[in-house]
Amino acid sequence: MNKNRFCVIMAGGIGSRFWPLSRTHRSKQFLDILGTGKTFIRQTFERFLPLIPVENFLVVTHANYKELVRTEIPEISEEQILLEPIGRNTAPCIAYAAYKLKMKNPGSSMVVTPSDHLVTNQHEFEKVIREGLEFAEQQHKLVTIGISPSRPDTGYGYIQIDSEQTGTLNRVKTFTEKPTLEVAEMFLVSGEFFWNSGIFIWRTEDIVKEFYQHLPEMNQLFSSVLQDYNTPHERQAIESIYPECRNISIDYGIMEKAENVFVRCADFGWSDIGTWNSLYQHAGHDREGNMISGDINLYDTRNTIIRIADGKLGVIQGLDDFIVVDTEDVLMICRREEEQNIRRFVEDVRLKKNGSFI
Amino acid sequence: MNKNRFCVIMAGGIGSRFWPLSRTHRSKQFLDILGTGKTFIRQTFERFLPLIPVENFLVVTHANYKELVRTEIPEISEEQILLEPIGRNTAPCIAYAAYKLKMKNPGSSMVVTPSDHLVTNQHEFEKVIREGLEFAEQQHKLVTIGISPSRPDTGYGYIQIDSEQTGTLNRVKTFTEKPTLEVAEMFLVSGEFFWNSGIFIWRTEDIVKEFYQHLPEMNQLFSSVLQDYNTPHERQAIESIYPECRNISIDYGIMEKAENVFVRCADFGWSDIGTWNSLYQHAGHDREGNMISGDINLYDTRNTIIRIADGKLGVIQGLDDFIVVDTEDVLMICRREEEQNIRRFVEDVRLKKNGSFI
Repeated sequence: MNKNRFCVIMAGGIGSRFWPLSRTHRSKQFLDILGTGKTFIRQTFERFLPLIPVENFLVVTHANYKELVRTEIPEISEEQILLEPIGRNTAPCIAYAAYKLKMKNPGSSMVVTPSDHLVTNQHEFEKVIREGLEFAEQQHKLVTIGISPSRPDTGYGYIQIDSEQTGTLNRVKTFTEKPTLEVAEMFLVSGEFFWNSGIFIWRTEDIVKEFYQHLPEMNQLFSSVLQDYNTPHERQAIESIYPECRNISIDYGIMEKAENVFVRCADFGWSDIGTWNSLYQHAGHDREGNMISGDINLYDTRNTIIRIADGKLGVIQGLDDFIVVDTEDVLMICRREEEQNIRRFVEDVRLKKNGSFI
Repeated sequence: MNKNRFCVIMAGGIGSRFWPLSRTHRSKQFLDILGTGKTFIRQTFERFLPLIPVENFLVVTHANYKELVRTEIPEISEEQILLEPIGRNTAPCIAYAAYKLKMKNPGSSMVVTPSDHLVTNQHEFEKVIREGLEFAEQQHKLVTIGISPSRPDTGYGYIQIDSEQTGTLNRVKTFTEKPTLEVAEMFLVSGEFFWNSGIFIWRTEDIVKEFYQHLPEMNQLFSSVLQDYNTPHERQAIESIYPECRNISIDYGIMEKAENVFVRCADFGWSDIGTWNSLYQHAGHDREGNMISGDINLYDTRNTIIRIADGKLGVIQGLDDFIVVDTEDVLMICRREEEQNIRRFVEDVRLKKNGSFI
């Protein structure tokens, strides 16, 4: 296995869309929402294990999640867990890993990946990532992975391809934010637009150059502590510069502005499982369309997502198209069509309960 | 206060209509379902306290409930709690109290009352019970309390009055079982039919005579241990005869057959609170018609009954006309119009779970 290839798993997210199952102290990447027996972060690690030496994984996460990462991925050492003192979106997260890697192995290449997505076709996934790595290493380009869209989804960012093609990769024409339904339908028909998977591949030197060019303040911050990476001073150095970083995504901060971005369009059964309804599409249902987890007696209930904690009994009658999530300290019931409001419910709880229950 | 008057509180019921709130180990009479701060049995005791000396209360209950009774009514002594080894409906329960009282105080009179009903007009209640006691004591009749019906309820038994009247009491023409809606509507229009409250008043000697006449086997059983009542042998004696008793109600076994039954028709804000919907009629609602108990954030929810355990948070959106009851180990959700099926749900749980959760 190529010892110069690294995998950076971004695991700092604290999303609330799976609340009350996902909580501040255990966010989605540390849950097994699909009931596979493995958490999302564990699945992500194992997905890259055939491609990347185990000592070349880096997990960037919030300091509070350190022990969860160690539990889920006991194969990696403490030095491979990069702790963010506060969340500052994906650009600082990637900068931290890139500048640290630059000091450790300047000739390395990196795959950057979210930690809470689903991939069902492992064989195709490995093929695509290998091609992306070879392309980035040989061509000195930034590579992103685009997913062939199967529906006009308004929850994803899209990547528009240019006609310029090199092997299986296309030059990127534009990155777009989440579209309206009308626009997403046009995207789907055009055949030029692909879902942005959030997976990126590049040579470490190349992405550092892009920070220098497009996010110069961030480049300055992470360059100011170069002598501290991979030393006992690293944590203190990171804690001193992180609060100064802009909260900005890598897409907005670099990918949309960079030249020489290429996309490998792929179809390996990807989903970000970003919502209960997206989870519903990827999990098994009973004959009435219910997706249930836990010990539940159902009567006259259809198209409903139900999760009950272990040891508890659910007796549920007469629901149609609902989400019911019962945890130790929170019961949430919500119409499936209203799930986008769960964020609002969580905000209300945050205000009323002074941070408890979230 | 008249020392010859006794109050017999029947507290052996193990109803399942308030499941999962009511449980085998804590049935409805031991719950404060209305949130008044007092359980039903405590309210029942206090309701009769202005009428009956505290040492003249007898509570008949299942042996398993002894400690619950002692906790709820610490004013009474252990000898005032009559323990049934098994539930055998109201006729054996009343026979036990009556034969024991016959030995203790043959000239006594008794008010027999359920332990899980609601009365809102205490002043009127006391007046009615006093009149009933005086009538039973002077006339040597059986007295029952009828409630002026406010709707064609199909969940109650009805008492039809005869035109023969003595003071404020009427002779009873018939006792009827729970009617169909059509029949209940006719009852309501006729003005001759009153709800059977399950409250009875009679001289101890008179009810014993009725057992002798209409339930001779039961009379024989309870007469066979006369020497044991009010002695250390009482419990063993009762345990030996109880399994031999027929499972039969006092209404069916005696009241429907006896001559000389009179009814005092009354209106003292009575309800048996036998169902969640009956509870709903007697408790406060918010502006959207929701009856909630517990820490709950509600959105777009109407006409819904919700109870959540202390310390837990509910976030509930989009329900209309539901019952949601969340206890430590059971979550039940059911349409209000389907509440009669809760018995069926409980039976299913009993079969599947081998007695757990009920």
